[in-house]
Amino acid sequence: MAKKKKRNYYDGTTEKEVRIIPLGGLEQIGMNMTAFECGESIIVVDCGLAFPSDNMPGIDLVVPDITYLHENREKVKAFFITHGHEDHIGAIPYVLRELNVPLYATRLTMAIIETKLEEHGMLESVERIVVKEGETAAAGDFKVEFIHINHSITDAVAFAIHSPAGVIVHTGDFKIDYTPLHGMPADLQRFGELGEKGVLALLSDSTNALRPGFTPSEQKVAEFFADAFQQYPDRRILVATFASNLNRVQVIIDHAGKAGRKVAVEGRSMVKIIEIARSLGYLEVPAGVLVDMEEIANFPEEKTCILMTGSQGEALSALTRVASGQHRLITVKESDVVIFSSSPIPGNEKAINRVINGLAKRGATIINRETHVSGHACEEELKLIYALTRPAYAVPMHGEFYHRQANREIALAMGIPEENTFLLDSGDVLTVTAHHAEVTGSVQHGGILVDGLGVGDIGNSVLRDRQTLSQNGILIVALAVSKVRGELVSGPEIHTRGLLYRKGSEDILEEVRQIAENAALDALSKNKTGRLKADLKEAISAHFWQTLKRDPMILPIILEVD
Amino acid sequence: MAKKKKRNYYDGTTEKEVRIIPLGGLEQIGMNMTAFECGESIIVVDCGLAFPSDNMPGIDLVVPDITYLHENREKVKAFFITHGHEDHIGAIPYVLRELNVPLYATRLTMAIIETKLEEHGMLESVERIVVKEGETAAAGDFKVEFIHINHSITDAVAFAIHSPAGVIVHTGDFKIDYTPLHGMPADLQRFGELGEKGVLALLSDSTNALRPGFTPSEQKVAEFFADAFQQYPDRRILVATFASNLNRVQVIIDHAGKAGRKVAVEGRSMVKIIEIARSLGYLEVPAGVLVDMEEIANFPEEKTCILMTGSQGEALSALTRVASGQHRLITVKESDVVIFSSSPIPGNEKAINRVINGLAKRGATIINRETHVSGHACEEELKLIYALTRPAYAVPMHGEFYHRQANREIALAMGIPEENTFLLDSGDVLTVTAHHAEVTGSVQHGGILVDGLGVGDIGNSVLRDRQTLSQNGILIVALAVSKVRGELVSGPEIHTRGLLYRKGSEDILEEVRQIAENAALDALSKNKTGRLKADLKEAISAHFWQTLKRDPMILPIILEVD
Repeated sequence: MAKKKKRNYYDGTTEKEVRIIPLGGLEQIGMNMTAFECGESIIVVDCGLAFPSDNMPGIDLVVPDITYLHENREKVKAFFITHGHEDHIGAIPYVLRELNVPLYATRLTMAIIETKLEEHGMLESVERIVVKEGETAAAGDFKVEFIHINHSITDAVAFAIHSPAGVIVHTGDFKIDYTPLHGMPADLQRFGELGEKGVLALLSDSTNALRPGFTPSEQKVAEFFADAFQQYPDRRILVATFASNLNRVQVIIDHAGKAGRKVAVEGRSMVKIIEIARSLGYLEVPAGVLVDMEEIANFPEEKTCILMTGSQGEALSALTRVASGQHRLITVKESDVVIFSSSPIPGNEKAINRVINGLAKRGATIINRETHVSGHACEEELKLIYALTRPAYAVPMHGEFYHRQANREIALAMGIPEENTFLLDSGDVLTVTAHHAEVTGSVQHGGILVDGLGVGDIGNSVLRDRQTLSQNGILIVALAVSKVRGELVSGPEIHTRGLLYRKGSEDILEEVRQIAENAALDALSKNKTGRLKADLKEAISAHFWQTLKRDPMILPIILEVD
Repeated sequence: MAKKKKRNYYDGTTEKEVRIIPLGGLEQIGMNMTAFECGESIIVVDCGLAFPSDNMPGIDLVVPDITYLHENREKVKAFFITHGHEDHIGAIPYVLRELNVPLYATRLTMAIIETKLEEHGMLESVERIVVKEGETAAAGDFKVEFIHINHSITDAVAFAIHSPAGVIVHTGDFKIDYTPLHGMPADLQRFGELGEKGVLALLSDSTNALRPGFTPSEQKVAEFFADAFQQYPDRRILVATFASNLNRVQVIIDHAGKAGRKVAVEGRSMVKIIEIARSLGYLEVPAGVLVDMEEIANFPEEKTCILMTGSQGEALSALTRVASGQHRLITVKESDVVIFSSSPIPGNEKAINRVINGLAKRGATIINRETHVSGHACEEELKLIYALTRPAYAVPMHGEFYHRQANREIALAMGIPEENTFLLDSGDVLTVTAHHAEVTGSVQHGGILVDGLGVGDIGNSVLRDRQTLSQNGILIVALAVSKVRGELVSGPEIHTRGLLYRKGSEDILEEVRQIAENAALDALSKNKTGRLKADLKEAISAHFWQTLKRDPMILPIILEVD
């Protein structure tokens, strides 16, 4: 690609400045949240959670640190949500519990958010405003326009954020589907109009920036399913897909229905979202096609289709239980066809393999090719959005650093000068005016760990302990001493967890007990019990390393009695 | 593919039987080990380890359970090794420590094994016989013929196992490379000769059975590197690949040398294997091309290439340290090109992403496409081997169940009757004669966990403890009681690890202390200390679940004093 001559498309005249502050979603996938600040107003786009990475054992989820919003709580006017995926909405209950400001979203997105708020008993306390595509909502000095785009969940939007400093377009997660199965292609006209008037900055989805070409239309998946239901007229078909991919669910219901099959849905999250979507008219189910899981066994198997969660091999999902033969209602057998209508999210490959193996061992035919299209824009779609909006500044969002880097390469190829492209870090403050943009500082940011009901009561030291415990186990040496009498009055008792079988290890445990007893008696006789804990740790640690090359956590407990 | 008419190719006349017993390597990838038993003789092919799966925290490696070989130790005549990868040789020190029988392998494979034996101080005690391709070694009633094949490590062989019941061909891990960079294509003539005379059973590599077509030649990678060194004449090039892929190492050294670059090698395992390969003449290094890591800084960067380990994002590898800026000698910068000459092993994707991100943030150009070819046969190569050997029975090996299933489909397409194909489980005993084969039983099998110097002293209960500890942490409540006096004489003390920050959690810990104290005083006053441990566990557990929805491991320690 030849680089175009540098030129700045923006001809705005104002000298006002707007600050763009990604508070999450850059280093960690998930936890999307970006603040926009102008004068006395702050608005926030998205409020997502991250799922814990493998070095966060026992953590349920991670939510963004909102210290900066707290410190500026008078300025914070509203939250705007692009779409209903967890990495864009999952932190709402945690964040709005602390910042009670209005929440704007489209109808389906809001309905999904409402189920979350309800679970947290917050439905009454949060002000919610449903906005339609094409409409604009005002919040402080900002006006936020909702623009139709395509994505793997229905009712997803991009935003044109009209600020005193100029217009910022935030694509959210998007693709361009010229032939969507339901609804319209992305509103390219509006992106073009905005570009014509002048767009200050474009924040865009980098997920697929490394992929050349165009993401295929959902139409392709529809063709696959039309074929699949024809190809296996005499077999039961199970389909695993993402619960929230309502387009996909619609395709499967449509084609199963046409093939004369009954469809049952298995998996709590999918049942819930289908219920919401139907009640709002986002899902059209021909009469008599959907039946309860409990009823589907009443129909001939070749006339049924089971739609389920678990395409990522999630431990507790419906499909995982089916694969391990532990599902209450579904037993997979040789006559079954299992379709994975999904692609693996990095990190889930091994779990998915286990599920596929389990299904294959039960004899099922497994199909996992040509069954899925991505919900994110590839290189040519990104070029199209750059060409339509012609932004002065490009800020690649949503993706690992090297995806965002690829997005920047595309921006450069589209003629945006290098100094007008920004690969931000979380917390960076990008200050933008019509004629200049630079990173002017950094605010507090990061992930707050949620474990059970505890939010933020677990930090690095606790995680480090958990890792040591899981790698090496723990040995507790407990004894009671009387300093008055200078005597060891009870113990030492040795307890281990996660270290070794008790059976067959009596010798080493007795050796450790002996070491502890000697250390205690020695300390008492010299009247030097002050260092006893440290001495015990050291001696036992050395012994374990020597005999077993292991390094358990060692916890001495010394109870003092009179 | 039209199915051929069923026909049994084998025309053997003997009624003797041979038993094929995979002791590992089927359910768990890795840990390849297959026993062949005939009359009073057993030989074993391969002796691999498995790396721990994610539900085995703290485990270093897993080796096969050899109870069956122990029980039949008089019969066990020898081990034969196909090639020098860990999943085929890694358990040798653990197994031959217990079964002291001769070990047969090709020259390079043996040299790699010897470094292992040396580390375990076993070099003197193990009888080792080096065999050349084309040669045959006798062991008990078996004769084992070494046949040249291609793979991602040099000196890999297939075996023709001549038994009284007939010839069994075991491909080991293989591909067919018509244009290998060094050495010859796989010995197709010999496979054909064996087929002509009659092959009883074919055990073959299923890894790529799902992939259509032919695995490309290593030549393709050579072309890539020739281009890459031309394309970046003014930049330093770092290449990460598998330490043991000597063909790859040769390609990189050759093309770096031709481009006038010095090559340094970083990463202990790679340095070691290159040393072995050079000393045996398996690697040809043009004079002056290889230099020490310590010296490479003396050359202009654009005239250097660093070859390193870490293509899988391994935590302690050279490249991972480079990516996180913690490498002693290598600092990556914008002018560097980093080539991943590898493909991700399932499960490593996230770690690899982290490494790529780290390198990208430091500005390096990253190349990870078209840089690698697999070492395993695809569909057409498997067909070729079936066509050449024309086995009576097909036993797909080496691969997840659904890979082996795909291999069986290929066997069926090649005309082998379904009842002559066997998808075995580990431990299965497949009894084969010229006219009949069936699974006649199952022997003890499984994985023995190795942690430090401990082999088999960790089992499921310890792993379960480790998982609970890592998910939920531990709370220890310690107190001293005098039953004689009916008094609580010290404590309770509450200690936690991996549960919550101490800071900010004083309240809940004080509540727990109070609960424990009340329970202890109550038990003492009623003279019912027998259930005190259980009572403490229950009360504290309930309290944590109520207040925090957490479920730590709870360990009560009650010391008795007079």
